[in-house]
Parts: sequence; C-alpha cells; structure tokens
Amino acid sequence: MMPILDHATAKAHAQRSLNRCTTLSKISAMHDGILRQYLSIEHKECNRVVSEWMTAAGMKTWQDSVGNQWGRIESTTPNAKRLIIGSHLDTVPNAGAYDGILGVMLAIELADLVTKKQLDLPFHLDVVGFCDEEGTRFATTLIGSKALAGQFDANWLSIKDVDGISMREAMIAFGLDTEKYAESALNPDEILAYWETHIEQGPVLEHQQQALGIVTAIAGAKRAMISYTGCSGHAGTTPLPLRQDSLAGAAELIVAIEQLAKSANNGEVATVGQIEAKPGATNVIPGFTLFSLDARAQDDNDLEVLLTQIKQRAETIATKRKLTLDWQWTHQAAAVDCDSDIKNLLQAACQLNNENSPLLPSGAGHDAMAVAPICPMGMLFIRSPGGISHHPKEAVIDDDIVKAIAVLYSAIVMQKEKMLN
Amino acid sequence: MMPILDHATAKAHAQRSLNRCTTLSKISAMHDGILRQYLSIEHKECNRVVSEWMTAAGMKTWQDSVGNQWGRIESTTPNAKRLIIGSHLDTVPNAGAYDGILGVMLAIELADLVTKKQLDLPFHLDVVGFCDEEGTRFATTLIGSKALAGQFDANWLSIKDVDGISMREAMIAFGLDTEKYAESALNPDEILAYWETHIEQGPVLEHQQQALGIVTAIAGAKRAMISYTGCSGHAGTTPLPLRQDSLAGAAELIVAIEQLAKSANNGEVATVGQIEAKPGATNVIPGFTLFSLDARAQDDNDLEVLLTQIKQRAETIATKRKLTLDWQWTHQAAAVDCDSDIKNLLQAACQLNNENSPLLPSGAGHDAMAVAPICPMGMLFIRSPGGISHHPKEAVIDDDIVKAIAVLYSAIVMQKEKMLN
Repeated sequence: MMPILDHATAKAHAQRSLNRCTTLSKISAMHDGILRQYLSIEHKECNRVVSEWMTAAGMKTWQDSVGNQWGRIESTTPNAKRLIIGSHLDTVPNAGAYDGILGVMLAIELADLVTKKQLDLPFHLDVVGFCDEEGTRFATTLIGSKALAGQFDANWLSIKDVDGISMREAMIAFGLDTEKYAESALNPDEILAYWETHIEQGPVLEHQQQALGIVTAIAGAKRAMISYTGCSGHAGTTPLPLRQDSLAGAAELIVAIEQLAKSANNGEVATVGQIEAKPGATNVIPGFTLFSLDARAQDDNDLEVLLTQIKQRAETIATKRKLTLDWQWTHQAAAVDCDSDIKNLLQAACQLNNENSPLLPSGAGHDAMAVAPICPMGMLFIRSPGGISHHPKEAVIDDDIVKAIAVLYSAIVMQKEKMLN
Repeated sequence: MMPILDHATAKAHAQRSLNRCTTLSKISAMHDGILRQYLSIEHKECNRVVSEWMTAAGMKTWQDSVGNQWGRIESTTPNAKRLIIGSHLDTVPNAGAYDGILGVMLAIELADLVTKKQLDLPFHLDVVGFCDEEGTRFATTLIGSKALAGQFDANWLSIKDVDGISMREAMIAFGLDTEKYAESALNPDEILAYWETHIEQGPVLEHQQQALGIVTAIAGAKRAMISYTGCSGHAGTTPLPLRQDSLAGAAELIVAIEQLAKSANNGEVATVGQIEAKPGATNVIPGFTLFSLDARAQDDNDLEVLLTQIKQRAETIATKRKLTLDWQWTHQAAAVDCDSDIKNLLQAACQLNNENSPLLPSGAGHDAMAVAPICPMGMLFIRSPGGISHHPKEAVIDDDIVKAIAVLYSAIVMQKEKMLN
C-alpha cells in the first residue's frame, strides 16, 4: 500500500471537511456569531450531525457518559488497541469555525479514506469529538478529555453557569446520567496513541511561510493576579516625588515583564491582559492597581526562571515606590512533551509528501494535554492566517488542508506498516 | 487699630468654624459619608443654616439667582466696593468636611470679628458660599463662581444628572427662576477683590512643616484621553516579536509620562488615573488600551512644553510597536496668576503673626480661578495632613486654623488701613 494520497482525492476530502466546518458553524447559540457550549441544545445537535457523518464514513458511533461523540472503524485484529484521533467540538463565544472542529472533521475524512481504501488497520481507528475543551460554560476547561483520563472531578457537577444552572442539572437535561461520568475514563492499556490536528492559533507558521508544523510540547503556564497598593491623591496637588502611584508602578512592571520575556531564549511568553486602576478618575492618582500575568514556556524550568525574575522585579519596584505588592497564583499547568515516536512519524509523513515539518511548541492548551497521562500523544498544527483565533476572522488556507489530509493519510498507513513489520 | 488678634479670641473663632464644618457635614445625601450636591435638598438646608450663622455675625443675607449664599457687613463709606471672601459649600461624594466649607466658615468668623470689633470698613465685606464648585451633579464645574463672572452658560440648563433630571428642572424644584441666572453676574467695577481660604488638598505644606501658604497661581490643566490600538492575540501562541500589544505600549508611555514630568523643573505634574485594556482577558493580548492623561503647570508655556514631549513620545512608541495612536483633548484650563497686591498683603499679615508664608502653586482648580476675570484674587492655603482630600480622612490641624483666623484678621485690618492712608 503506497502511503501517499493522490492530490484530487486529498483535495475532495479537504473541501468536504471545510464545508462541514461551515455547516457546524450554523449550529450556534449566537444569532450572528458562533457559540456552542457544553451540554447545550447546540452541543446535542452538533453530536447528532457529526454522528451521521461518522456513520457515513463507515464507523460505528456512540456518545460517552460525559457527552463526547465517538466513531470507530473496527479492526479485525484480535485485541487491537485504539488509535484515537480527534479534537473538540465546543467553541468560545463569537468563535471562528476551525478551532477544534477542523481536527475532528479531518479525522472523519481519514476514517472515510480508511473505509474506502479498505485499509485493514491493526488498531481500532477511534475518532473523538470532545464535548468541552474551552470551558466557557462551567469555568473549568478540558472537561471531555479529562474525563477520558479519569480526571473528571465530581465537584464540577455543582458548578453553575451564568444562568444558575449547575452542571448536574445540565447533564440531566442533556440526557446523561450524572452517576456515570466515570465510565468515560479509558483503560490506558487499550490505547495505542492520541493524535490531534489543530489550527496553530498563532502566527509562527505563517511567519515561516509553512502550511504545517509538528508540535514539540504543550507549554506549561502559570497565571497570577498582581496588585500594587499605594496612595490615592489629587492629580493636581501632589508633587511627583511625594506620590505612591500604583499605576505608575504597574506600568514599570509591565514594561519589565515584556523585556524579561524577550530576553528569555526558549520561546517563553508573558502577557498582561487585564488591568484595573482605582479609584479610576482622571484627576486622581490611582492608589490601587490590579493586573493579571500569564506566562508560558515549553520547559517548566524556563518558566520558573522567568517568573522568579519577574517577581523579583515586582518587589524591587514596590520597594522603590513605597507600594505594597500582592501576588496571588491563580493557575498552574505543567508543560507536556509530545511523544517522540509520533513526532517522528508525523515528520516522516510530511517528508513523504514533500512538506517541511517545522517543530514548534504549542503556547495554547489542547485536549492532547489532558489525554497525555494515559497514552502517547502528538499534534499536527495547521497554519493560522494572521495568527487569528477565537474570533470570526479565524481562517485557514484551503491548500493547507489538502496537505494536512495527505500527511495524516500517510501517517496512518505508515503507522499500520510499522506495526505489521 | 492693632491688626493683631489675641490668641484666645482667635482660638475661640477657630473652634467655632471647625464645629460648624462638623455641623454641615451632617447635611448629607449619603447615610455614612458626606455628599452635598448642587440644587439638592441638602444644598437648600445648608444655605439656610449658613444664612442663620451669617445673620448672627451681623450680616444681611441673600441667595442669588443660581443658588449662591451671600452675607454682607455693609460699609458706611459712600460708593464702597465689595471685598468678597468665600469658597464653596458643595461636596464630592464621600467627601471630607473641610474642602471649600472651611473657607466659608472662616469668612463668617471674620465677619463676626468685624462686627464685634466694630471695624468700620471702607468696603462691603461680602461672604459668599458658592453653590457648586465640584461639578459632581451636572458634569460641569464652578457653576456658582462662573455665574458671578457672567459665565453661566444657558446650555447648562439642559444637562441632566444621573437620574435624568435636567439642571432646569432642578433649579425650578429648588425655587430658582431659570430665566434669571444672569442676574448673579457681578459688575467688576463694584468689586475690590476676591479672597479665598482653602485647605491645600496636597502634601506640600505638610512636607515643609508649615501651617499656611500663599498661592502664587492656580495651575493650568489639560486633559486627554489617549488610546493605542494594536492587535489582540492568544497570550500563549503569539511570540513577543510578533505582538502589537496595546497595553505594553501604554505602560511604556505611562512610565515616560512620569519621567518627563519629573524632569520638568517648575512643579509640573502629570497623571494617568484611568486605564482600560480590551478585551480584558487574562489569556488575550490586549488589542486596545484607553487611558487618561491629566497634566498641570503654573505656567502655560511649561505645560505646553511638557505635553509636546509626552505626545512625541506617544508617537515614537506607536511607530516602534506598530500601534495606532489616538489622542483626544478633553479639557483645557489656562493657568491663572494670583494678584500680587493680595499675595503681598497676605504675606505681610503672616509676618505680623510670626508665621512663615511659603509660596506655592495650587494644582487644583478653585472658585478663585472663575472669579479672576472680574477682579483681583488671592488665596490662602491651610496645611492638609497627609495631603488627603475628597476623602472622609480629610483633616486639618486645629492650631493651623487659629493661625489662619489671626492672619485673615490682620489682612482685613491692613486692607482697611491701606485704603484709608
């Protein structure tokens, strides 16, 4: 079996996967934008439609106990393991059409090809459409993929959405049995690997003029809420040397955060996305300023080094300006390396298709991160024009999708051959 | 007539003026703080109480056509001019007890002394309690003092407060005739001068360990709303060199604003009091940041030099960071010099009382600024502990008030003698 797909076939499948992204974008709780949240009526309808496409691709389908949508091309090999390929079907508010969705659609095209080409795989090809990766409804993310890894937390059932509906109530309304969430957990011994294709959601591949990239690691992230407390005062009557201006201190730190992250050498990033200065009047020196810090690195040690530098600078600024520093950690996720064998396989598949395969870290979190504790995982990134995501302008280049289909097809055939040899 | 008040008398009058500030602080629209706005029921009650105190001090009283409260010790001199002494009786929300109020109370004590000592002044001693200096109700400030200068703007009548009540409706409810606002305007030929005593609302006198100061000028001020527009992006996936982070640009400018103002040599100040970054999520690079600038100087040229430097820096930062700069001027007030003769008189009165009389600019605006176009004006500042104002912790030191009473008394006697010689 030649592990190369002809261009016309790849193009047809790519086109259908894009059309299906457009179709799903209409299943939305927003009138003039895309919004599909966990356990919503749109979630239900989306699973129904996806399940039909899975069936048409020759798969048997099921929905698991937390609402993930599954399809399988069953292997005839005795005791076959499961190669799981997928991504998520939920969206943020006012989302683009491709974040998550495209990875599921490409997996279904791959299953359809496996069926049509009658590849008798030595593993079950399981396609999964995760129910919640974005976490926009219940203030907790990666619900679907964490459930697979046995990490669904019973406490989540009590979390309420903005309308006061608990996850428990929403699961019941959706038709799920809240006693059975643990049944979604997979047995690691039965899993071969997890592959995820996802749009990059960043500008790196575009900047390198590359269609595809292989993910090296999903960056670790730490977040903090930082505040400086100084002293409010009249903007006209308080000479500068007598001020304790919390916002001026915050500004100095924000500039330093950017400089320190830029000086780091391994792709570290740090961002201040939120800021609030009080009392917030034009003519009053702000006595209190609160701001967020989000820092990420593909290596946890690099992240710690950067954060230590930032925190030291924050303290120096506080001392110099007679401000009180408060620093609260709010989030922490360790970096997760992608599996070397899967990276190598994806690189080889790219090479076979005359595609470059630049390596890059993922700065964003993905379902692959949650699945990593139970199986080897790898990710293929597709170029994001303008680096734009979580926005209606989120886009892909059609030809990149043709290349992605071809590479995935080659990878699946190579995976088969590797196991048979 | 010795122009010196004995200490016991000064102390008694000081104590009464402070007690009266406390009494007026109870006439408040806030349950647990001070709030007295223009044309409110509290404004009416305050004028009534103040008018009683004026009457007790031997004055004839009246309320003018915009709601300023007046009292007069009438001169027996034919064609006597008016020496106006006062400040404002309105407050910001959650105010202190002394801002404005104390200046009116001290003027009433002075009138009481003039009556008791039977000083036959060659000018009418007019005490004014301005109805609105703070401008917290109708988004326009200095209403009472501008009306005196013939600057009451008929368009103001249509401005609505937060409850949708127009100034016109409020004036009618208060019992004023909205057709007659212009009758509050004074004839400049009839005015000798305007004196205002006010708490400093800043830390300068405290820093110099001085009770009283003589104001050289009321600083000019310009305000702008500045925005940087860059590009929002994922905080994890966008490498630093590819970002157009509007908040990082704003932070760089805020640090520069502080440095440039510090480098200026004539007491210039500049403040960023408001800031908003959008979309305002922890994990999103802010594509848009809006912030305020308030800059003041006692010399208009100094202010222009500083603002030109700041604006140039803003443009440099925009270019360097590929941000779009928007700069909207929102407020402009020219600096107003205090009258030299009044400064000299107040300094001489301080000297007579063995008080230092440090000169300082007023960074805050005052009624004196609005009255300046129609007569010579001068201001006496009283130390503000901690520089705190517009806050319940606003305070004065009792002994400073004793000194202020003594200096004002000396000044009025010296003014009389100067005119008779």
